[in-house]
Amino acid sequence: METVRVSLGERSYDIFIGSGILGRIGSTMKTLSAGGTAPSMVALVSNPTVHGLYGETVTASLKGAGLGTVEIIIPDGEEYKSLLWAEYIWGELLKARLDRQSIIVALGGGVIGDIAGFAASTYMRGIRYVQAPTTLLAQVDSSVGGKTGVNHPLGKNMIGAFHQPSLVWIDTSALKSLPRREFISGMAEVIKYGVIWDSGLFEYLKHNRDKILGLDDGALTHIVMRSCSIKAEVVSRDERESGLRAILNFGHTIGHAIETATGYTRYLHGEAVAMGMAIEARLGTISAEEASRIKGVIDAYGLPSLLPDDIDISSVMEAMEVDKKALGGELRFVLPLQIGKVRVQAVERERVRRLLKG
Amino acid sequence: METVRVSLGERSYDIFIGSGILGRIGSTMKTLSAGGTAPSMVALVSNPTVHGLYGETVTASLKGAGLGTVEIIIPDGEEYKSLLWAEYIWGELLKARLDRQSIIVALGGGVIGDIAGFAASTYMRGIRYVQAPTTLLAQVDSSVGGKTGVNHPLGKNMIGAFHQPSLVWIDTSALKSLPRREFISGMAEVIKYGVIWDSGLFEYLKHNRDKILGLDDGALTHIVMRSCSIKAEVVSRDERESGLRAILNFGHTIGHAIETATGYTRYLHGEAVAMGMAIEARLGTISAEEASRIKGVIDAYGLPSLLPDDIDISSVMEAMEVDKKALGGELRFVLPLQIGKVRVQAVERERVRRLLKG
Repeated sequence: METVRVSLGERSYDIFIGSGILGRIGSTMKTLSAGGTAPSMVALVSNPTVHGLYGETVTASLKGAGLGTVEIIIPDGEEYKSLLWAEYIWGELLKARLDRQSIIVALGGGVIGDIAGFAASTYMRGIRYVQAPTTLLAQVDSSVGGKTGVNHPLGKNMIGAFHQPSLVWIDTSALKSLPRREFISGMAEVIKYGVIWDSGLFEYLKHNRDKILGLDDGALTHIVMRSCSIKAEVVSRDERESGLRAILNFGHTIGHAIETATGYTRYLHGEAVAMGMAIEARLGTISAEEASRIKGVIDAYGLPSLLPDDIDISSVMEAMEVDKKALGGELRFVLPLQIGKVRVQAVERERVRRLLKG
Repeated sequence: METVRVSLGERSYDIFIGSGILGRIGSTMKTLSAGGTAPSMVALVSNPTVHGLYGETVTASLKGAGLGTVEIIIPDGEEYKSLLWAEYIWGELLKARLDRQSIIVALGGGVIGDIAGFAASTYMRGIRYVQAPTTLLAQVDSSVGGKTGVNHPLGKNMIGAFHQPSLVWIDTSALKSLPRREFISGMAEVIKYGVIWDSGLFEYLKHNRDKILGLDDGALTHIVMRSCSIKAEVVSRDERESGLRAILNFGHTIGHAIETATGYTRYLHGEAVAMGMAIEARLGTISAEEASRIKGVIDAYGLPSLLPDDIDISSVMEAMEVDKKALGGELRFVLPLQIGKVRVQAVERERVRRLLKG
């Protein structure tokens, strides 16, 4: 089992990463004591799919550690990351009489982590929660860093809070039950960490493709651990996204615009980010050769790197304009200076449009 | 104008107190810059009554300082401190395209402060807000300390966050338009500060009743300033209510139980707290003479100090049992050791019941 520390003063916490560790979550949770108080009750928040696969294991582990449990199941899908379902969670917590010493465990992907974390951040003015992510995207990205929230009809993630988890418990064996397309999509974020921070990870991804796609335990634990370490480092230096944390958006400016222009139905998040990275790499100051090495790794993992002809470039450009990161009229991007290093830069609209055309 | 500092590290802020200062809020708000950013837009959240009285003054002051404004009006009353109306505020903020540099101004009483502060705490994972309280209760209590939230059908203030304001702007002349009964009710919290922390304030209240009830500018500014100073001191030492902050609950354990037992319709909050203080004073270790001095000041301000015969003692006792502060089976109270000093103590149920009977 690997451990990564997220250093944030009194809000610091550990990330545990290993294969087959879900059944051991109870004993570690029992030792959690912020302000000297062990959890009084645990609410397990999950969706029917993940709960069917791992709910029993987790609940048995919690009960085995002497913790009282209540299970709260919300439907599977981004459309349920809403205020309505947050209200459902709050109601269940109140009905089960959870107090301020209680803890929520978010067992599932990014939707579950975001909404359960948000419910925790605002239940009785904030209770603790634990992330137990079961998708690759959640394991390497959304479970670390304390961003929680729900969507509003007028915008994604518009209602939320920065609320750090007390523990992140990552069982990489859960990736074996993840649909293949979702696993591949999650790899986009792993590749991102290589490009923005760690050329060693980038090389590892290049040379260990078969092991990773074969879901080798050691390889999975390694790439998740490296990804979490980088995210932990960035978050420790910039908890509330006032500076450095922006580098995590490499590939995301164009990626988000592609998701918006295609109505969030055609591509998974990582697929859109993969195209975003391949395109944004060419906007940077790196050589064409380096940019094509990035594209090469994206392609090797079966991720898309080119924008298909049938996508309307103007609607992608337009989506970028309304993106909250467009400040003062300039389009700003996180762009690689070399593999392992990025910088935020403004780019002329005409250049972006040209590159979107391929 | 008086100034009180709330010292909370990077979350520190100033409370300004004076008569007729609402029209000067704009210039001070313009200088607010957390992370070096002046507010981009200001959303004024208020209710129709308060907005009718002071909305124009505040808006003119904001516009005069060059700040863009949007006005958000929610109905007047505790029943609108709900998720539904929080959602309305978020929607209006999004429609007006407020970004992370925007600021909310809460102009009104405790309901407006609580819901606007909660909306701020969760809009785009947290934006700044300013409290501009117009009731005595809000000026001396709820506007300071960062408790924000809304009610849930299953419990009051169950959904919320600790989110400190960036500024508290108290115009005591607003108290002249406050219904008399509400003003008197707010005095209960001022008396509370004297009992728990400051015998000098207690004496001041005893000797300056006519000036205070006559709404003398100097006297009002003095008692609000002293109350805010004490609250600021307590909050600075215990931001998240893990210890000391509990002393602010003197009179509230029984007070809340009376409110619950009478369905929150018969008494205003301060009236119930006044009875709670008079009764809890007699549970303490102070002399009967000291307890009757506390009752004397409560009576002098026209607040109730005895539980009427027609209130069912058993339902008051029952309400106390389910109160979140009842831990481990014991009934615990904040009780005076002398005027100006309190301690948390457990009390036998039979003694409480006896004293409730009068």
